[in-house]
Amino acid sequence: MIKAGIIGGAGYTAGELIRILINHPQVELVFVNSTSNAGNKLTDVHGGLLGETDMSFTDQLPYNTIDVLFFCTAHGDTKKFLEANTVPSDLKIIDLSTDYRKESSEHDFVYGLPELNKEQIKRAKHIANPGCFATAIQLALLPLAKDQVLTEVHVNAITGSTGAGVKPGATSHFSWRENNISVYKAFEHQHLAEIRQSLTHLQNNFTEDINFIPVRGNFTRGIFASIYLKYDGSVEDAEKLYQEFYKDSPFVIVTDKNPDLKQVVNTNKCVLHVEKHGNKLLILSCIDNLVKGASGQAIHNMNLMFGLNEKEGLGLKASAF
Amino acid sequence: MIKAGIIGGAGYTAGELIRILINHPQVELVFVNSTSNAGNKLTDVHGGLLGETDMSFTDQLPYNTIDVLFFCTAHGDTKKFLEANTVPSDLKIIDLSTDYRKESSEHDFVYGLPELNKEQIKRAKHIANPGCFATAIQLALLPLAKDQVLTEVHVNAITGSTGAGVKPGATSHFSWRENNISVYKAFEHQHLAEIRQSLTHLQNNFTEDINFIPVRGNFTRGIFASIYLKYDGSVEDAEKLYQEFYKDSPFVIVTDKNPDLKQVVNTNKCVLHVEKHGNKLLILSCIDNLVKGASGQAIHNMNLMFGLNEKEGLGLKASAF
Amino acid sequence: MIKAGIIGGAGYTAGELIRILINHPQVELVFVNSTSNAGNKLTDVHGGLLGETDMSFTDQLPYNTIDVLFFCTAHGDTKKFLEANTVPSDLKIIDLSTDYRKESSEHDFVYGLPELNKEQIKRAKHIANPGCFATAIQLALLPLAKDQVLTEVHVNAITGSTGAGVKPGATSHFSWRENNISVYKAFEHQHLAEIRQSLTHLQNNFTEDINFIPVRGNFTRGIFASIYLKYDGSVEDAEKLYQEFYKDSPFVIVTDKNPDLKQVVNTNKCVLHVEKHGNKLLILSCIDNLVKGASGQAIHNMNLMFGLNEKEGLGLKASAF
Amino acid sequence: MIKAGIIGGAGYTAGELIRILINHPQVELVFVNSTSNAGNKLTDVHGGLLGETDMSFTDQLPYNTIDVLFFCTAHGDTKKFLEANTVPSDLKIIDLSTDYRKESSEHDFVYGLPELNKEQIKRAKHIANPGCFATAIQLALLPLAKDQVLTEVHVNAITGSTGAGVKPGATSHFSWRENNISVYKAFEHQHLAEIRQSLTHLQNNFTEDINFIPVRGNFTRGIFASIYLKYDGSVEDAEKLYQEFYKDSPFVIVTDKNPDLKQVVNTNKCVLHVEKHGNKLLILSCIDNLVKGASGQAIHNMNLMFGLNEKEGLGLKASAF
Repeated sequence: MIKAGIIGGAGYTAGELIRILINHPQVELVFVNSTSNAGNKLTDVHGGLLGETDMSFTDQLPYNTIDVLFFCTAHGDTKKFLEANTVPSDLKIIDLSTDYRKESSEHDFVYGLPELNKEQIKRAKHIANPGCFATAIQLALLPLAKDQVLTEVHVNAITGSTGAGVKPGATSHFSWRENNISVYKAFEHQHLAEIRQSLTHLQNNFTEDINFIPVRGNFTRGIFASIYLKYDGSVEDAEKLYQEFYKDSPFVIVTDKNPDLKQVVNTNKCVLHVEKHGNKLLILSCIDNLVKGASGQAIHNMNLMFGLNEKEGLGLKASAF
Repeated sequence: MIKAGIIGGAGYTAGELIRILINHPQVELVFVNSTSNAGNKLTDVHGGLLGETDMSFTDQLPYNTIDVLFFCTAHGDTKKFLEANTVPSDLKIIDLSTDYRKESSEHDFVYGLPELNKEQIKRAKHIANPGCFATAIQLALLPLAKDQVLTEVHVNAITGSTGAGVKPGATSHFSWRENNISVYKAFEHQHLAEIRQSLTHLQNNFTEDINFIPVRGNFTRGIFASIYLKYDGSVEDAEKLYQEFYKDSPFVIVTDKNPDLKQVVNTNKCVLHVEKHGNKLLILSCIDNLVKGASGQAIHNMNLMFGLNEKEGLGLKASAF
Repeated sequence: MIKAGIIGGAGYTAGELIRILINHPQVELVFVNSTSNAGNKLTDVHGGLLGETDMSFTDQLPYNTIDVLFFCTAHGDTKKFLEANTVPSDLKIIDLSTDYRKESSEHDFVYGLPELNKEQIKRAKHIANPGCFATAIQLALLPLAKDQVLTEVHVNAITGSTGAGVKPGATSHFSWRENNISVYKAFEHQHLAEIRQSLTHLQNNFTEDINFIPVRGNFTRGIFASIYLKYDGSVEDAEKLYQEFYKDSPFVIVTDKNPDLKQVVNTNKCVLHVEKHGNKLLILSCIDNLVKGASGQAIHNMNLMFGLNEKEGLGLKASAF
Repeated sequence: MIKAGIIGGAGYTAGELIRILINHPQVELVFVNSTSNAGNKLTDVHGGLLGETDMSFTDQLPYNTIDVLFFCTAHGDTKKFLEANTVPSDLKIIDLSTDYRKESSEHDFVYGLPELNKEQIKRAKHIANPGCFATAIQLALLPLAKDQVLTEVHVNAITGSTGAGVKPGATSHFSWRENNISVYKAFEHQHLAEIRQSLTHLQNNFTEDINFIPVRGNFTRGIFASIYLKYDGSVEDAEKLYQEFYKDSPFVIVTDKNPDLKQVVNTNKCVLHVEKHGNKLLILSCIDNLVKGASGQAIHNMNLMFGLNEKEGLGLKASAF
């Protein structure tokens, strides 16, 4: 059994991580650290766990009891923590924050997108888990980058409210958000950096714009990205490209049917669909932002790091309705 | 033109009041007071007013410029304000808070439920505007109380999120509330006091329980109350009773069709429907909590106090979908 | 009083038209024709009208009792009707279907977008009322076309379910659509024709692509369009352009704040907002698809045709929440 | 491996059954029969299965290849089928329809509520799977019936749209149901029969009314029931009663915290909570109508019939948000 600990256990990604790990046949969840909730039961914060665990949050960090430590900390806090604390050198770390996604000679975190970096992940000690938008958009574009055919990219992606975290605010107030649509950080979302980093690894000369409009949707879970760009090939060419690129990626499904978001909600899948219109290739990409876009992907990375079947514990039922 | 001012202009009921008054043909909105937003445009807080007004919030209270002052203050704050400040003795006041709903020899506020107190309202200087649940439930029960046939009452009423106000919190967080249902203050909701006060005015000997389960719904506007009690008469008797009681109440519609909430959303209507099952009478009652349950009713009261047609400014289009 | 009749009275746009006309101070609704519902009360089909009318649907068409006839017929059916029937030559017609939106020497329908064709509309006898997406997108682009600066356009627009009509189907089933997102008719939506027609009237040489991704949203009312294109000017230039173009258009509001859809839901407004990012101009455009995108715009056209104040009857309260 | 077949594979309960069985470690799904969809892929109808199966619907019924046959047929159709067809006498049958829930000397179906009939289910060949409302309400009342303290019962239960099935209709149209609330079959819901049947098994003398108001909610999954009745004991008495009754029922959780619906959505759990107010005991009961109220419970029954761990395959992650 792999023994796991979590730091920052009160947020949405931690809740999702716990809900999945609790049913993972090869994992024992040893502790969930939360300074704000130390002493409280997990179920006080994550009500969906009722009947599944009696564990309480702890303010302790017994590193020696675990094999892997998940950071579900706020952006910036993982780095601060690791600079201020000494963790055992052989402890595996999976960081769900943005802190180590940018490659640098100053750290050894591997960017944990299994469809791009599976072999490095298997050998990695430290993983920087990708962002949710970044996951949906990269999976839609990687095959084209590999084929050196990326041109200026047009992305509109709508996200569920859980992407904005548990802290209440004006744009997560139910009375405002219900039945509402709005745009934020147009052309300037912070995930663009990691997207471009991955794409240029595959297509070195790619320098054109990635025009990205993030949209706040009136639903809780999921990202639905509509992406298009100029493309000379046929739709059959594109489908073949995508099928080939993802032939060893069990969570990416390339479908020839027009997809909808709820096909992936509550699962670790990414569903992709391509269409050709005039000289444009349209790619639709759907994920669950909390699963494939965060905690499910973190567990996928853990499975790879520990040599498990990569689907272990991730056979999650789609909510579908 | 009636000149109106508002205190406590940043909340939901104030927003609704402004949105309706702006189009009221006989009202000029002179000022909207808000300490927290003084200097900001109304449209900064109430975006639905874009294109309709350039007015800004003020921290001033120029009583001499107005004929009527609406209090959209938090519960408790109207009383504090009136105890600490001297308002002109001839200024009409309509208080949307709970502070003066309980009758008392210590104040002269008339309980502003037009279907019960129309004549007193016409002569009143001070109005205590009813609560939202209280409006939906009283309108469902008044005809029975008038007929002296009230027995133990069973109420389940589901409300939209706007009932909980603009301040964000755990149960108004979109990620939690969307597609969720929960119960709060079962059997103990504060509106029970004003409901019982009105009912016993009509049926003095009524002392039995009003069992009231308030439910948080995953929608923003509206209250749908399902109410039943033992009743000896036929459904025809009941319909006649209700039609008679509300024959001079233009906003109460007694329908023989099974109603749905959206028939009244965004309007000042209350739709009532009665059915007989065994020895029970079922009454369904629907209102918009922000309109008939708050700001629309306040304007209805204003219309009565100033001798206007009571429907003036309240011909609001149902959103319907 | 203008006397109005409606053909095709059972659908969503007819319902909305009736709900607005009922409160229009200068209109008397004389008949609502519906073959499928003849004899039924309007309130049987349009429950939101409860308490406002006792009128029943008719299968008669007493042209001589009316001044204006609204067609809320299915696409194709207005043309069939007018080819098969003779209506009085002086009867004004406003057609909400797509049948006469394409200009042609074979008909005299004026394209009823008041912000583009106000003077022609005032003199017109026959109006082809614009499509909902077409309204939101044209209003976002007309100022640029007037300024001859249109380049390739990128549009993503999400629409409420009422856009798909009252007939139930797989993609309007609540269990499927709730919390779901999907794309349809990408790059090929039928409204592209009328959009291009209007734009090329203003900028004759515009031939570049309008890339349009229509999205099905999980809400009932409204269209939120995100549009961008290359633009050399500054954001101030663009704002000035839009303010100037719409200075006589009371329903179009250009705001410098990031808008959200519910600001316009249940109103006849179009809210526009522009931002500059790199060399791209982003335009956000929001309307209510049933009001500004259909029935409200039809009434706006009626007001113009009959010489009324163009805002008459259209001071609709935003639902806001 | 248990080999399973399904009849009536195109509906919601069949979809849910397939989605769970696909990941059940001890089941092989051998065929899914559907006359209307024979030849189509399962994923054409149940999109949430993408990437999990390539199976197609069949119009064949190879009984000899399976150990258990699930009927996901419309109410009435299981009985018609079994009267018209001969199935092998040793084939286990689990019927999700209402056809055999009423006990009778004319059939040998056991009522498949594991918390009531676990031992009979283990020995049964034929199971009548309970209704969704019936499950939520019975689980809330069984401990009281066992204790002989049932009195007149007051139930209000709100259900998701999936309870009404896949066939589109007026009350499942998104434009109507979104943000809407309505009541149906008040006091007369068909599940009352099976509820009373179970309760009187435990408390023979119970003859008082079960007043049940079913409510249509604007969400897709789940049932939230608020139930109260006169009760002489303390809340501690009640909690002890419930804890004791469900001590061997792994899917029923009695919590001392106020529950919300999403704690159980997408799981096979029933969460119960009791409160005492005056002389009334309030019981809140939440289930997922498609899982614990249908397909999950069917699999629970299968597990019991085949001697498996009763939780096998049912460790489903709550969607939570």
